[in-house]
Amino acid sequence: MTGGGHAVIAALRDALGPRALLSGDAVGARYCSDASLTGSCLPRAVLRPDTVEAVAAALRICNAAGQSVVPQGGLTGLAGGANPRADDIALSLERFAGVEEIDEASGTMTVRAGTVLESAQSVAAAAGFLLPIDLGARGSCQIGGIVATNAGGIRVLRHGQTRENVLGLEVVLADGTVITSLNKAVKNNTGYDLRQLFIGSEGTLGVVTRAVLRLRPAPAACHTALCALRSYGHVVELLKRAQAALPGLSAFEVMWESYVRFNEEAERIRHFVDRPSLTVLLEQQGAEEDAHRFEAFLADALEEELIGDALIAQSQKERDSFWAVREGHQMDRLLPGLINLDVSMAIGRLGDFAETCGQRLARRFPDAHISFYGHLADGNLHVAVSVPTSTDQAAAEVSRITYELVRQRGGSISAEHGIGTLKRPYLGYSRSAAEIELMRRMKTALDPNGILNPGKVI
Amino acid sequence: MTGGGHAVIAALRDALGPRALLSGDAVGARYCSDASLTGSCLPRAVLRPDTVEAVAAALRICNAAGQSVVPQGGLTGLAGGANPRADDIALSLERFAGVEEIDEASGTMTVRAGTVLESAQSVAAAAGFLLPIDLGARGSCQIGGIVATNAGGIRVLRHGQTRENVLGLEVVLADGTVITSLNKAVKNNTGYDLRQLFIGSEGTLGVVTRAVLRLRPAPAACHTALCALRSYGHVVELLKRAQAALPGLSAFEVMWESYVRFNEEAERIRHFVDRPSLTVLLEQQGAEEDAHRFEAFLADALEEELIGDALIAQSQKERDSFWAVREGHQMDRLLPGLINLDVSMAIGRLGDFAETCGQRLARRFPDAHISFYGHLADGNLHVAVSVPTSTDQAAAEVSRITYELVRQRGGSISAEHGIGTLKRPYLGYSRSAAEIELMRRMKTALDPNGILNPGKVI
Repeated sequence: MTGGGHAVIAALRDALGPRALLSGDAVGARYCSDASLTGSCLPRAVLRPDTVEAVAAALRICNAAGQSVVPQGGLTGLAGGANPRADDIALSLERFAGVEEIDEASGTMTVRAGTVLESAQSVAAAAGFLLPIDLGARGSCQIGGIVATNAGGIRVLRHGQTRENVLGLEVVLADGTVITSLNKAVKNNTGYDLRQLFIGSEGTLGVVTRAVLRLRPAPAACHTALCALRSYGHVVELLKRAQAALPGLSAFEVMWESYVRFNEEAERIRHFVDRPSLTVLLEQQGAEEDAHRFEAFLADALEEELIGDALIAQSQKERDSFWAVREGHQMDRLLPGLINLDVSMAIGRLGDFAETCGQRLARRFPDAHISFYGHLADGNLHVAVSVPTSTDQAAAEVSRITYELVRQRGGSISAEHGIGTLKRPYLGYSRSAAEIELMRRMKTALDPNGILNPGKVI
Repeated sequence: MTGGGHAVIAALRDALGPRALLSGDAVGARYCSDASLTGSCLPRAVLRPDTVEAVAAALRICNAAGQSVVPQGGLTGLAGGANPRADDIALSLERFAGVEEIDEASGTMTVRAGTVLESAQSVAAAAGFLLPIDLGARGSCQIGGIVATNAGGIRVLRHGQTRENVLGLEVVLADGTVITSLNKAVKNNTGYDLRQLFIGSEGTLGVVTRAVLRLRPAPAACHTALCALRSYGHVVELLKRAQAALPGLSAFEVMWESYVRFNEEAERIRHFVDRPSLTVLLEQQGAEEDAHRFEAFLADALEEELIGDALIAQSQKERDSFWAVREGHQMDRLLPGLINLDVSMAIGRLGDFAETCGQRLARRFPDAHISFYGHLADGNLHVAVSVPTSTDQAAAEVSRITYELVRQRGGSISAEHGIGTLKRPYLGYSRSAAEIELMRRMKTALDPNGILNPGKVI
């Protein structure tokens, strides 16, 4: 560490107190990497402030010294966006946690950045509400990271992404300025909507400290079905009809055959005797009486041969077995080094994309396990590829082949995971030079010394 | 006009052609003001480009010359945001109009900025879709202005504001750079979400040229009721229950007694014999069969005395008569100089706000007609005040009294109308110095010469 580096650490310890700063051997290995497991550096120090003022003081000191800072939440990201370099200081909000308020009339929750999603969900549920943000990592991801990455997840179709569920936000800028906009109303057109700058900016423009989140009424019932389809065209038509007929439609997940086969075998389940080329998991939330509408919708689709078969979950256990195949929790264990890509494009193009991408990948990696699944209504497809004797080079090649096809179809190389470090080389596949230049302009305006999460996104 | 001014006009005429430039006597009075009727200056010239390249060329020339530009859409705004000054050049997108594409699989429409909302709605309807953006000015407001002001309107409760319905955007920056991000997928986390910079920035950061808008399935049926309530507490409880019980809830409009009385008399209608202190217009969109659910919901609310009475529209004519009272189309005619304010805050605070605001205004203007109504589910209240012998000073005083109470309750002085010029003196009532300073930083980053809509917003 340089003399300047020591001086910064000393100044931070003075300002924040010794409990809020870990350095040397006290820095645990968990601060090295997000869930992509691609980070290998211990940061120079870890800051763990427990007030907004302490976050502001820390950033003031770091900004003045040109010390780079990597904001960290629950470290569940998949794009390397929270991985520090050896010279960085990590800034974890884990000690600034908890729900500060539920406003029942407005249907909002004011929550600190370090709060784990699942605990915020529980507080909402206890008050009779649904916190509409939900994703697989709910047990460890934190609200700050969710906002910073504009997390998607399994309820976007019904309730929107994180962006649509953040009504108010508090952020600390690189220079320590605290921007407090804890608005609770759905409508607020008083000047530029500053929230939007920070949501999805992956910690490069400011550090989220608190958020006002929208809550929804807790649904009374949930109806779930698994449908067998012959072609992608049928899937698109089923989606269109479901959106029109089922006002409580909350999931429309599509899975290609190889994905279902792998996960049914892993879970020792078999839903359809003849495994269809495409399977759709359909779900609606609403009242008990909505079961009729759901069943009638499926009966019509069967009669018109839009779907070949359908199974309606008769119990929570059956529902869980449908979702177990969709969530594929065994994949990472059974296919070590699994490459998970996350793309989006116009819905009409996804069918051809999956077919072409599957062929190209199979040609290059004949022994690979290749499968596709995704949140179709959001135009979002996941590509899961397991290459035997997986190497970094193979991963890069899978990315390049896939993203090249995304580029040709005018799609996005990141639907929900963000850019981080891992997708940064490919940003130009989905963004024009003018767009990237405008992103740089914003970065320079908000963080002129470039201390916030350098090397990420752009 | 200065020599430099003449040179700019000449350069613009050369670059865009004579049909795209009006100057001198050819500049019509309609380019003077938006619907607030507060603008009185003819602009130096009016540009009417009919291609994106022409918009870019115009801005390049104006930026190099330091010539200020006021983007104009349908001129239906109420905040003076499109009013030119004598030295400004107006930039109207009226000749760049039309729907370019409907993507049925993605459920999107690609539309040019100069398209009138109603005509875009018709194109969507002809393809079996609903364009979810709707507001009273639909017959003349244009898509570019709608995006630039993040317009609200009557479908926000169900489908969100304009911001939530813009998937892709094309914008020309002050220096003529074209930023084309015509994304169609709901999810796209590839770097900063540049759309958000421009939506609601009122033409001060860039000029919108095209947008990709989300479409929704056209609803098969609509059920509408008028409910009589005793207290604001009952209104909040009714809202909470309606959100939980009616998945197709599409309007929850609340009207205070003096608003209903005025408009029922103006329309020669009488809905409830005993006019209640609060009236709620409740509407759901969905299938025909959803009528049962709607009726059962109202029956329960009656039985529990949450509402005192309810009328369910039995025909389109009855529905229209409910909405006629809510929309109050006669007010502007019968109350010349009517002052329309538009505020938002936490829903639990709106009842006390309306009561206190009504008292304060009545004390200061004993002869005024004062009424309140709004989109309650969005936290959005309109304050309509008619002061006999109305003057600019009276209007300013009404604003000051109202906004002062908004400030005390942590609310917003503009829920949907924007800031423009008229609300600019009060921006600090709803935004902190740090927020306004950050807005300035964005303005400087995107429009360093300050040519875009100067004097608006900040």
